[in-house]
Amino acid sequence: MAGTNSERILLAEGPAIILVEPQLGENIGMVARAMANFGLAELRLVNPRDGWPSDKARSAAAKADHVIDGTVVYDRLEGAVADLNFVYATTARSRDGFKPVRSPVTAAETLRGRFRSGEKTGILFGREKSGLSNEDVALADEIVTFPVNPAFASLNIAQAVLLMSYEWMKSGMEDHHAVAFDAPEQAQASKQEVIGLFEHVEQALSVRNYFHPPHKKAKLVDNLRAVLTRRSYTSPEIHVLRGIITSLDRFSRPGQITVSSQSGDDGHDGGTAGD
Amino acid sequence: MAGTNSERILLAEGPAIILVEPQLGENIGMVARAMANFGLAELRLVNPRDGWPSDKARSAAAKADHVIDGTVVYDRLEGAVADLNFVYATTARSRDGFKPVRSPVTAAETLRGRFRSGEKTGILFGREKSGLSNEDVALADEIVTFPVNPAFASLNIAQAVLLMSYEWMKSGMEDHHAVAFDAPEQAQASKQEVIGLFEHVEQALSVRNYFHPPHKKAKLVDNLRAVLTRRSYTSPEIHVLRGIITSLDRFSRPGQITVSSQSGDDGHDGGTAGD
Repeated sequence: MAGTNSERILLAEGPAIILVEPQLGENIGMVARAMANFGLAELRLVNPRDGWPSDKARSAAAKADHVIDGTVVYDRLEGAVADLNFVYATTARSRDGFKPVRSPVTAAETLRGRFRSGEKTGILFGREKSGLSNEDVALADEIVTFPVNPAFASLNIAQAVLLMSYEWMKSGMEDHHAVAFDAPEQAQASKQEVIGLFEHVEQALSVRNYFHPPHKKAKLVDNLRAVLTRRSYTSPEIHVLRGIITSLDRFSRPGQITVSSQSGDDGHDGGTAGD
Repeated sequence: MAGTNSERILLAEGPAIILVEPQLGENIGMVARAMANFGLAELRLVNPRDGWPSDKARSAAAKADHVIDGTVVYDRLEGAVADLNFVYATTARSRDGFKPVRSPVTAAETLRGRFRSGEKTGILFGREKSGLSNEDVALADEIVTFPVNPAFASLNIAQAVLLMSYEWMKSGMEDHHAVAFDAPEQAQASKQEVIGLFEHVEQALSVRNYFHPPHKKAKLVDNLRAVLTRRSYTSPEIHVLRGIITSLDRFSRPGQITVSSQSGDDGHDGGTAGD
């Protein structure tokens, strides 16, 4: 669900996003939402076709009101970049000229470095139909382009903003493999727990003549233990598996019924996956 | 501009994108476009609310017709994943359970590795309003979640698909800093060219008494050369700069006029930046 939550950190810093002559309010709103998703907040519009403020933009922003409320409109791109130190132009095609061309990863790293050293930065995005003009690009320091499918290269403006905002967020993370939350108790179970599982399974199978004929038992145990160790079970998983064995074992081993149903630790409560 | 171009490579391989009970045709279309942008082509829909085919989806797909035409509809998620070997579930919130949680970068690397070894893979995306149910997630192998602004964490479904498609594309690239096109002639100029610029500038300035008083000349030349080397000019840039000096020098140095205007190499044609 979209929306801000006062208990959670609202990230709102980084490069200004500058839309040059955007046409549709919906697109401006989707840009605002994409910015908010990845912690950017400063939106600048150069000469928006349908004026500003825009109800369509606010609606499409899906409660990114802090971005919409802070949006500033300029008549000309020169004014929109005047207070910035370093500016990227996004473009899908090669331009004649001397500006370095960067990937989104490189651009985000550059923007993050300049942000940390106190510079003000911005990223230019062009018109829905025609992108940035060469005159627009001339006001930028460097060009950033996206690694797209060669035969299907046109990105929607909000999606282009989303990718740069996403890379901006990632550039502030130490580890691109890190995640915001983790599954509970992912540590591998101890060998004592694994061996407990082996013995539990093997005992239940043994009374049913699973290990028959006797001279094959060593190989059958080997295979069984290989299957049971291949997945590197966690403690809660071992708990669930032992609950399964206990449950299957119940009512079919005379004299064991009472013991199983009174154990109070049959693992049945451990099956919380899918709750 | 959107559209396919038969002269360019159309990438169309990789994990299936599986939308579980999507509501709006527009969103399905934007998903198809995002997939096409980053080289994915296999779209599966589980029980789409407004039916299939969808004119709204085709329109929003912005000519990603190869994705729309190939879309397959299933009654149940079990059918949509039946032929796959490995499946990710996308989710914005922590789930009770045992599934590993991965970042988009890790997930894309895993999908790429399994793709290269011949496995069929997929990524599940949930309903616009409520995401994936725990029953849906239970059919996946691992979870992938996005590094979003904690207080503004809700991604539009097409944007979530875009990010995974983008990371898929990147996972196939050797260098995340590489770009599809580069600016012409980015190599730094040779020292001979730089020294030629020094001499040209210094000669033009010298006849105008820029280096005055004489005992300051060494320091002034030092400063000038520092400014002219700081930017690491390329050969075409040196060409433009020498053209500027030649032009400024013209008509103001008696006896030099004819020489300058006949040189035929005044750098004026080198100013192609911004064409």
